[in-house]
Amino acid sequence: MTEQTGPSRRRLFGYAGAAVAGAVVAGGATAAGLRAEGNDPVEAGQTRDLTPYGDHQPAIAAAPPKHAELVALNLLGGSDRAALGRLMRLWTADIVALTAGRPAPGDTAPELAVPNAALTVTVGFGPRVFTLPGLTTAKPPGFAELPVMKHDRLQPGWSGGDLLVLVGADDPVSVVHAVRRLVADAAPFAEPTWRQSGFWNGTGPDGRPVTGRNLFGQVDGTGNPAPGTPDFDATVWAEGPEWFRGGTTLVVRRIMMNLDTWDELTRSEQERAVGRKLSTGAPLTGTAEHDDLDLDARDADGRLVIAGNAHSRLSHPSENDGRRIFRKGLNYVRDTGAVRESGLVFLSYQADVSGQFLPLLARLDAADALNEWTTTIGSAVFAIPPGFREGGWLAESLLR
Amino acid sequence: MTEQTGPSRRRLFGYAGAAVAGAVVAGGATAAGLRAEGNDPVEAGQTRDLTPYGDHQPAIAAAPPKHAELVALNLLGGSDRAALGRLMRLWTADIVALTAGRPAPGDTAPELAVPNAALTVTVGFGPRVFTLPGLTTAKPPGFAELPVMKHDRLQPGWSGGDLLVLVGADDPVSVVHAVRRLVADAAPFAEPTWRQSGFWNGTGPDGRPVTGRNLFGQVDGTGNPAPGTPDFDATVWAEGPEWFRGGTTLVVRRIMMNLDTWDELTRSEQERAVGRKLSTGAPLTGTAEHDDLDLDARDADGRLVIAGNAHSRLSHPSENDGRRIFRKGLNYVRDTGAVRESGLVFLSYQADVSGQFLPLLARLDAADALNEWTTTIGSAVFAIPPGFREGGWLAESLLR
Repeated sequence: MTEQTGPSRRRLFGYAGAAVAGAVVAGGATAAGLRAEGNDPVEAGQTRDLTPYGDHQPAIAAAPPKHAELVALNLLGGSDRAALGRLMRLWTADIVALTAGRPAPGDTAPELAVPNAALTVTVGFGPRVFTLPGLTTAKPPGFAELPVMKHDRLQPGWSGGDLLVLVGADDPVSVVHAVRRLVADAAPFAEPTWRQSGFWNGTGPDGRPVTGRNLFGQVDGTGNPAPGTPDFDATVWAEGPEWFRGGTTLVVRRIMMNLDTWDELTRSEQERAVGRKLSTGAPLTGTAEHDDLDLDARDADGRLVIAGNAHSRLSHPSENDGRRIFRKGLNYVRDTGAVRESGLVFLSYQADVSGQFLPLLARLDAADALNEWTTTIGSAVFAIPPGFREGGWLAESLLR
Repeated sequence: MTEQTGPSRRRLFGYAGAAVAGAVVAGGATAAGLRAEGNDPVEAGQTRDLTPYGDHQPAIAAAPPKHAELVALNLLGGSDRAALGRLMRLWTADIVALTAGRPAPGDTAPELAVPNAALTVTVGFGPRVFTLPGLTTAKPPGFAELPVMKHDRLQPGWSGGDLLVLVGADDPVSVVHAVRRLVADAAPFAEPTWRQSGFWNGTGPDGRPVTGRNLFGQVDGTGNPAPGTPDFDATVWAEGPEWFRGGTTLVVRRIMMNLDTWDELTRSEQERAVGRKLSTGAPLTGTAEHDDLDLDARDADGRLVIAGNAHSRLSHPSENDGRRIFRKGLNYVRDTGAVRESGLVFLSYQADVSGQFLPLLARLDAADALNEWTTTIGSAVFAIPPGFREGGWLAESLLR
């Protein structure tokens, strides 16, 4: 069984084309050969900016942004299906302008809109949207709030939400400017309920794309399907309902990491918890990051080399009926006075949140060795509409 | 009177050499022709990393970092002059390793130390250090806590501190990793009292260095003396006492900015408050960013073009007996629940905080038009020791 084996093959949707295909970076074995436009230097005549148009919202399959902010908003009392449509038209106009480095309509700080920032915006709908009159039958199958896990210590301030905007860019100035604009335009319809910011370094010292590391120091995201492959498409893009074809679902989990107790471990204890080497991210049974795990290998004493509760074993597709997810992490730090909290904003994309993500989450909650040093303090789930064409708008086929 | 006219010329200290000279970027008219190593793409065989050695701590004259964190620490009860010396030796070893992308001694996450991150560390001493037995006569002249200004609304949680570490880098992962290491090594001697993080975009869409903008959208820092010029040296580097030769002082002011009321202004009202154009940063009396201000120019109605209370007038050297400062800003955002606060961590370097900065601060506090939209909520001041040579350590001549 190889890591490239996924769930049943499904129809391959039209892929968003060269602009996205050229920008992918992922844990897949093919990633090193691909350009990561979001991270590479700008060469003459090139741009880091992605087209806002396509079958899918473009950030999902693109390189991880260096900086990102997520804002969850709750709909105001009077916001109905028609209001949501008006907001989506407004946001679409904002997105088309901002991702090209142009001021959004009515932009109060137009000079903060700059090109080549690799700015992307991803919009999602929380479960309550599908309780609005006229939208109840549109709910994607299996789309619902996640149940609370045994190890969860959820805080309302980091959980839930009716709408999501996820803004990524090379530079935080571009991120906060775009977020400010999008939140301001939403004010008649919805108000923020939480904000989470994070960062990721997907560029090696030589400027080439790498998987990146979380704040435990682990290479994080190696097992991902590679954008542009049939496995990726089958993992991520939904086939229905009709309006949702080419969309996906996004799980946002705020995972606090206890660096102090983690640092008390020896390196080999740290490696055993994950089943991978800290130096390269290679499985303990291999030598290179993208070597597949040998889940049956045993050491001289007959013990499993990749322990029974190792994170990489429990999350491996072969232990999950072939189910996969596509995950992107954002490191975060948050200070309360002089006390720093560190962690990961864990983002998981999958066509079917109940069918793909939930069984994996339950399995990890029950047994993952990492649970000793991690605590999930926020949880939210969003349906991510498909992309839009020039002249169209977000979720048009649902809301027009 | 031109902006290049500064206070009395003083002896030009040995400048830290090509590694630093090649990395400067500033608001000075010469900046556009210089390379900003901290921002440029890495070319073959090049590195973004600065040497940690030199007459001065190297970040001060270097390009503004994309990301920075400041941690102020208070000395524990038993920390005396000898303890401070031990800490400086520890920190020096950390700095030499981390700025080269190597793990610090005892690093618990060695893989997070990476080269080409343009990592820099700047260390400072708060006023209380110079009350320790054996150090009272070493206090630089004029070095003292700033008085509270009329418009200040200082919060203890953002003010004061016995020690400062200021870490900058291209990437937040490098910043938080270095900060964690430095704070951990300080634990026997001092504990954090506040942390401030910020970001700055000093790179234009074409990859060339620019002055950068704050979150009001203003070009911010145009009036700075250019690193590498006699004006810069005279503005920034202290001449004494002997141990402090080549050092400087750093003022840290946390300035909350009310973006909502600022956005209610027209663009011409916004421009009048500063006396500069939002589009280019040019003075209202000029056409290019680095044109000098014409402080006497009047419009057809006989009114001053650059208003009497415009920020750029009040802070202009000709209105301040030729006194200058060298400022670097860091934009910040801070969320409390879903409510976002925005602002600027204002950093000002000057040889003599009482002689150069304080009169300017008093003048701006009394009359600056920007006071209507800004509130200073934190204030601290640090003496920044000179640099160290290979084999030496920070503030060695004070503490050995």
